[in-house]
This record gives sequence, C-alpha cells and structure tokens, in this order.
Amino acid sequence: MEKKYVEVCFTPDDYDYFKGRFEIVVVIDVLRATSAICSAIDNGVKSVIPVSSIEEAHNYQEKGFKVGAERQGQIVEGFDFGNSPYSYMQPALRGEEIVLSTTNGTRAINIAKDAETVVIGSLLNLETLTNWLIARGKNVLCLCSGWKGNFNLEDTICGGAIADKLLASGHYSSHEDSSVGAKYLYCSSRDNYFGFLKSSSHRRRLKKLNLNRDIKYCLTPNQLDVIPILQNGKIVALSDS
Amino acid sequence: MEKKYVEVCFTPDDYDYFKGRFEIVVVIDVLRATSAICSAIDNGVKSVIPVSSIEEAHNYQEKGFKVGAERQGQIVEGFDFGNSPYSYMQPALRGEEIVLSTTNGTRAINIAKDAETVVIGSLLNLETLTNWLIARGKNVLCLCSGWKGNFNLEDTICGGAIADKLLASGHYSSHEDSSVGAKYLYCSSRDNYFGFLKSSSHRRRLKKLNLNRDIKYCLTPNQLDVIPILQNGKIVALSDS
Repeated sequence: MEKKYVEVCFTPDDYDYFKGRFEIVVVIDVLRATSAICSAIDNGVKSVIPVSSIEEAHNYQEKGFKVGAERQGQIVEGFDFGNSPYSYMQPALRGEEIVLSTTNGTRAINIAKDAETVVIGSLLNLETLTNWLIARGKNVLCLCSGWKGNFNLEDTICGGAIADKLLASGHYSSHEDSSVGAKYLYCSSRDNYFGFLKSSSHRRRLKKLNLNRDIKYCLTPNQLDVIPILQNGKIVALSDS
Repeated sequence: MEKKYVEVCFTPDDYDYFKGRFEIVVVIDVLRATSAICSAIDNGVKSVIPVSSIEEAHNYQEKGFKVGAERQGQIVEGFDFGNSPYSYMQPALRGEEIVLSTTNGTRAINIAKDAETVVIGSLLNLETLTNWLIARGKNVLCLCSGWKGNFNLEDTICGGAIADKLLASGHYSSHEDSSVGAKYLYCSSRDNYFGFLKSSSHRRRLKKLNLNRDIKYCLTPNQLDVIPILQNGKIVALSDS
C-alpha cells in the first residue's frame, strides 16, 4: 500500500505552500483555543461556531448566542468567555450552540476550511484523534496556529506528536523539514512538556496572566475522547468517533 | 550587565517580525551559499558581490566578472559556477572580485542589508564567528535562508548552534520560540548531523544531484577561521577577525 503523507505546517502564514494536498487538516492551538473547543465538545456543547473577527462575534451576541472572544490572552470586554477551557466545562452550556473568536486558533480554522475535512487537535485528544486518523488513512496536515503569524513551540510539539504516532503506524511518511523538526521537538519534550516549554514565549505571556491552571490542563495529554470536526461552518462532535 | 538577545529567524519571509531590533544579522545558508562564501573568502577571494536576480548576474558577467549562479541546486547555464564550495577554492580566484546569485542565500543577504552589520555564517566558521560575536556583545539575529521561503533543518540547526554558544557565554538570552526550538534541534543533532539530516528534504534534493561531497564538507564544523562581512554591498574578509 502506498504511504500517505503527514506534514506539519508551523503557521497559518505558511499554509499556502501546503494547501490542496491533504484531505484532512488538523488545526492546533494548544494554548488555548483548540483545547477549549475539545473541552466544550466533551462537555456536550452542541456546536462551536468559529469566527475570525470581533465584529462577527458581536453580531452573534446580538442574536442571543453565548460568545467567547479572546485577544492577547484575555477575555474581550463585553463577551461571556475568553479561551480558558474551564469556561467551556459549565453544565449550562450542554446542548448549546456557542461562538468563539480567538487571536490565532479561529483564524487557522477559517484558513483551512476549504479542506475536505477539518478536525480539531490538541494534546487533550491526542490518542483518540491519532487512532482515528490512522484508521482513515488519508493525507494529513497538522496546521499550527502559531502566535500572531509566528512559530510557537506548543503547537509544533503537538503537531510533532501527531506526526510521530502516524509515522509509527507504518502507513505514513513525512517529507517536509518542518515535519521532521516538529517530530524531533516532540521527542525531545514528551517526557516533560512543562520543563521544555518553560522558556516558551507564549507560556511566559500566559504566566503573567496567572493562567498556570489552564496551562497545566492543556499540556496534559489524552484526557478527552472527542474529535471535534468542522461541518457547515460549525464545529461539532464527530458522530462516528 | 544587561544581557543581549540572540534569536533565530527561520526564513526571510519572517524577517519583518525581527527587523530593526538587532545590530548584527548572521545570514545562514548551510547548503550551500554561505558555505561557499566562507570558502571563497578563506581562499583569498577579494570580495563576493551577492545579487538576487539572474539578470543582475548577467550584467556583471558582461562587465567581465566571474559569476556564480545557482537555481534548483544546479549551475545556471552560461555561468562560471553554481554554489558548490569547491568551485570557490580555485587558486585562480585569489584576489578577484566575484559575483554570486543563489536560490535562497543571496536573497537573505539582500533582505538583511539594512542592518548595522551583516556577517556570513555556516557550520564551517561556527567557532570563529561565535567567539567574535560574543566579544562584540551586540544583539544578534541568525537569519536562516530556508528553502524557497520555507523552514529548513540545516540552517535552523546552524542558527541553533550559534544561539547555544552565545547563551553558554552567559551574556545572552533568547526569547522567541523559534530560537528555543532551533537550540533544541541543534542539541538533538550535534553528535550526528548526517544521521539527523538524512530525512531533510533539501539533502534529499541535493543527493539526487550527486552532491554528497559538498554536503559532507558543509556539515563538518569549524574548518575555516574566516568571518565574511558585508561592506558597501560586497562581502569581504573582516579585517580584525
């Protein structure tokens, strides 16, 4: 059987180079948008509508939706939540349609939406997601959200972890240097994400905001069995997962 | 004493984010432009004029200059050399002014030319260069040439090696995730560049062109004591190195 590709794209700005060659795009924003989305779907939220701009977020709010909006790591004034995963674990949100706009993650989701299949990845659903990807046997691109267009470590490590697991199945190969680099960074870090990421710029940024509880949660793999998937502009639970 | 920064920029496309914050930019294109430039300067070539386009290269050729031009890893038809370092070791070139245009490296040099100081880095002159940088004590950006705008492993590892040595001096710190990632990739690879880079896309590309001798030379650190520096649009030997 011919091997499929798994590659890692460091930032949405690099997406054009990869575009069109992968049936499945996994969008990753470990700290914290895609971790929050996984938590929301796990909590029973019916759907998460990702929007890029604060203006769109406002429009949904006026229609009565509960809306999460984050910029610079903080809740945008006037909105219900930011992107802390804990905000999305409230029982009151079960069965609801909610809206989310974040600095990096929702932008990446919207950039990838032309792909055949867009799913949401994080360390939280790593094992469930990679098992499903291997069973599907399609070409997979891990699209890291980065930080304002720049490379970040935590998304790259998560992308490297996905690539490593797909490569270990024997059914995948990686050709791009970004994928090889991501895999090595994952292998260097997997025994101690915290230690590895202590000098990460994004973690330092969040630390100032006193978000250590969020960070610890987002960096602890395999806590959730969900695969959030984009369908008709809304992120829902994959029905056959 | 306040610490200076050493950071690693993965590609010329990312340079805008870093621009203006570093007195010294080290341009890196391990396979093979900056390795070739180091070899040329070591051989006694008087200066290397980096030009971005084939048209400019032709103009210099018409004026009687010896001109190297490489695209897709191969010599452009009608020119004297490509970017094999061995081409620049000929005794006949000593004292000459030559011209060079390559796919990635000369583009990076020209993008960085607004910086106070632009020097040429490779694994070949790693120790000489890092000792000089530490003695200067300025903010340093390692600008990787990448491959057609994309991240590549060998330049990143060289940037990580420079960062690692500057950090080890105790006078530098790194804040960007790209720099932390580059340093880890260097630390993972330093005992066996060949093994590490065997899956590198660029090495595979060059292997097809039967350039293993070049690759082996370019990946063997600390063979040369030169510091090529950009002065008035020409790369020359640093006089006080």
